[in-house]
Amino acid sequence: EFEVAWDASSADKGGWSSFMAKEIAEQPDAIANTLRGRIVEGAVEIPELGSLGPDILKDIDRIVIIACGTAAYAASTAKYAIEAWARVPVDVELSHEFRYRTPVLSARTLLISVSQSGETMDTLMAVKYARDAGVKTLSVCNTQSATIPRESDGVIYTHAGPEVAVASTKAFVAQIVALYLFGLHLGTVRGTLSTEGLHDMTRQLLALPEKLAEVLEVTDTVRQLAHWMADTRSVLFLGRHVGYPIALEGALKLKEISYIHAEGFAAGELKHGPIALIEPGQPVFVVVPSPRSSAELHSKIVSNIQEIRARGARVIAIAEKGDAAVLPFADEVIPVPLAEPLIQPLLSVVPLQLFALELSTAKGLDVDQPRNLAKSVTVE
Amino acid sequence: EFEVAWDASSADKGGWSSFMAKEIAEQPDAIANTLRGRIVEGAVEIPELGSLGPDILKDIDRIVIIACGTAAYAASTAKYAIEAWARVPVDVELSHEFRYRTPVLSARTLLISVSQSGETMDTLMAVKYARDAGVKTLSVCNTQSATIPRESDGVIYTHAGPEVAVASTKAFVAQIVALYLFGLHLGTVRGTLSTEGLHDMTRQLLALPEKLAEVLEVTDTVRQLAHWMADTRSVLFLGRHVGYPIALEGALKLKEISYIHAEGFAAGELKHGPIALIEPGQPVFVVVPSPRSSAELHSKIVSNIQEIRARGARVIAIAEKGDAAVLPFADEVIPVPLAEPLIQPLLSVVPLQLFALELSTAKGLDVDQPRNLAKSVTVE
Repeated sequence: EFEVAWDASSADKGGWSSFMAKEIAEQPDAIANTLRGRIVEGAVEIPELGSLGPDILKDIDRIVIIACGTAAYAASTAKYAIEAWARVPVDVELSHEFRYRTPVLSARTLLISVSQSGETMDTLMAVKYARDAGVKTLSVCNTQSATIPRESDGVIYTHAGPEVAVASTKAFVAQIVALYLFGLHLGTVRGTLSTEGLHDMTRQLLALPEKLAEVLEVTDTVRQLAHWMADTRSVLFLGRHVGYPIALEGALKLKEISYIHAEGFAAGELKHGPIALIEPGQPVFVVVPSPRSSAELHSKIVSNIQEIRARGARVIAIAEKGDAAVLPFADEVIPVPLAEPLIQPLLSVVPLQLFALELSTAKGLDVDQPRNLAKSVTVE
Repeated sequence: EFEVAWDASSADKGGWSSFMAKEIAEQPDAIANTLRGRIVEGAVEIPELGSLGPDILKDIDRIVIIACGTAAYAASTAKYAIEAWARVPVDVELSHEFRYRTPVLSARTLLISVSQSGETMDTLMAVKYARDAGVKTLSVCNTQSATIPRESDGVIYTHAGPEVAVASTKAFVAQIVALYLFGLHLGTVRGTLSTEGLHDMTRQLLALPEKLAEVLEVTDTVRQLAHWMADTRSVLFLGRHVGYPIALEGALKLKEISYIHAEGFAAGELKHGPIALIEPGQPVFVVVPSPRSSAELHSKIVSNIQEIRARGARVIAIAEKGDAAVLPFADEVIPVPLAEPLIQPLLSVVPLQLFALELSTAKGLDVDQPRNLAKSVTVE
């Protein structure tokens, strides 16, 4: 197993105003560490899968990913990728719901748990439940030697380094990357992913740390926006496809540390209810897919933007650099680097993390230690 | 096929202040019509299943239910029941997300669509997509001869009568009941449900119209509550298990017709973020499971109530009549009749429908025709 040494200095703020600010800025390095040693000559190697060898992975007919909070949104993002690459249906379930409903499981189900601490009690209990039912279990975890990995058949450590702020940032992107690595491995083993497709995706993952560094350049823009919006009482977030869990995550960050009503929606749901909330001045963040590689979804999102704009919404678009179609309709555009559709959520989430950080700061709140929340939920 | 005649009078308000008020009050009759002719000597009969005969139903290994808005919450409620009775994994997906992500489907997948109008464009396109992929399709629909049932292999009409108000009420409970009938049929065909279990559930379904009439007795209490809360800016809803989609539905009703920020959560998620939103005076509706039949979940919900109460939340509990454990911790208790856990959501949703209706009325809004929304979303 590849080990990443955590030195003592990573446990202090190192000049940053908060651990959260530091951890957001650490994302390029965190992801470089998640990837390190795992992409070899364009292919994925995950020796820590333990007993989850190719014979078992070829035979699974369903994946259930269990998680809580932010980790569940990482899982929801990865669902799109794993299904696309490995052609296995993936269900994402909240750990506390999974446990209490006699879920349908079989020896061909793979249960993947996602927990930064590896100690989340509801997730641990769900893993034990599945294991006792004869289900194979894989843990995605950021903390060496935590309980959940010990109770699982295999583990992919995210190696993102210690995360101190209660609101998860670098662990979230590292969880998605770890699940992507597993999805690529699974697609390779099952023969559903071409060598060309595999090489293309691994190349893009290797380019991700640099793109994460680039997206951090929006920090000042986002800070200014957050200061203008310090009195905002509610914020909505819209996305489609992999942008949908990113919208949910953007809303959760804001709830956690800014205490304002923030809700994320699948943009396709707008007409089925949430559009009633749009009134003049309502801020809406929209995660816009690439106009190059997701042309159909892009045009649907642009028409959503026009609809809410016509009702007075103040639209802040997270859009690919050079996306000219969005400019006439958005009040603000926060540019993210060009990337393939499945990579884009890893970049689009960063401005939303920064917005939550900066809004919380502008409101004079304790960014790292929000009221009522603990870093790891080790009780039920 | 059993036909329910819709007379002309059902298309006017018949003395009610709004179509929504009328349709909420019609729920006992609507459900009696959904059930009529379909429970014969304790067993379920659904002749309209068409080509979806026992051989096909025995062979399916996965169900995907697609829907949008309220119908998706009906589907999420039924997921718990269908999995329990038929031991087939059930995934619920938003139609517009399903279509655009190359979902994993096979000849052993059954796709169920849920649409009141049978014309929801995203759902129709998703049904066609699945059918073209060789997947068997079943439609749950309230409107005779609509497009989606015509494009499906089988149909279960909900027979709830015309629904005019944009915010769905009677169609929602009828959708759940129709899906339950299918789940019982499926469990019978697959041999996963005992005759005793089947008879017990059909008995409970037959008792449902009377219990729905009983729960409507809370109307005055809820009206008074809504009038006190006319200035409320945001409301949260919590539930677990089948109470979780009911919490989501309660929040959606409020968004749709009262235009206030309302969000539903799985109660187990509280500590993973949403509890940061709780400040003194924040109203929180809690859907409380039965202390008799769901003792473990009941005690977890009661401890959630204590946690949010300690932070100043104003708790309105939807709880079973005689649930004494909730009384000391709730500011208001709205009683619902005793029922088994899978029946309870059909009752718990009624006070939430009434609350949205009465709050919208108290705010002087147009209950039936909320801004920006159409009854059927027949465009993408």
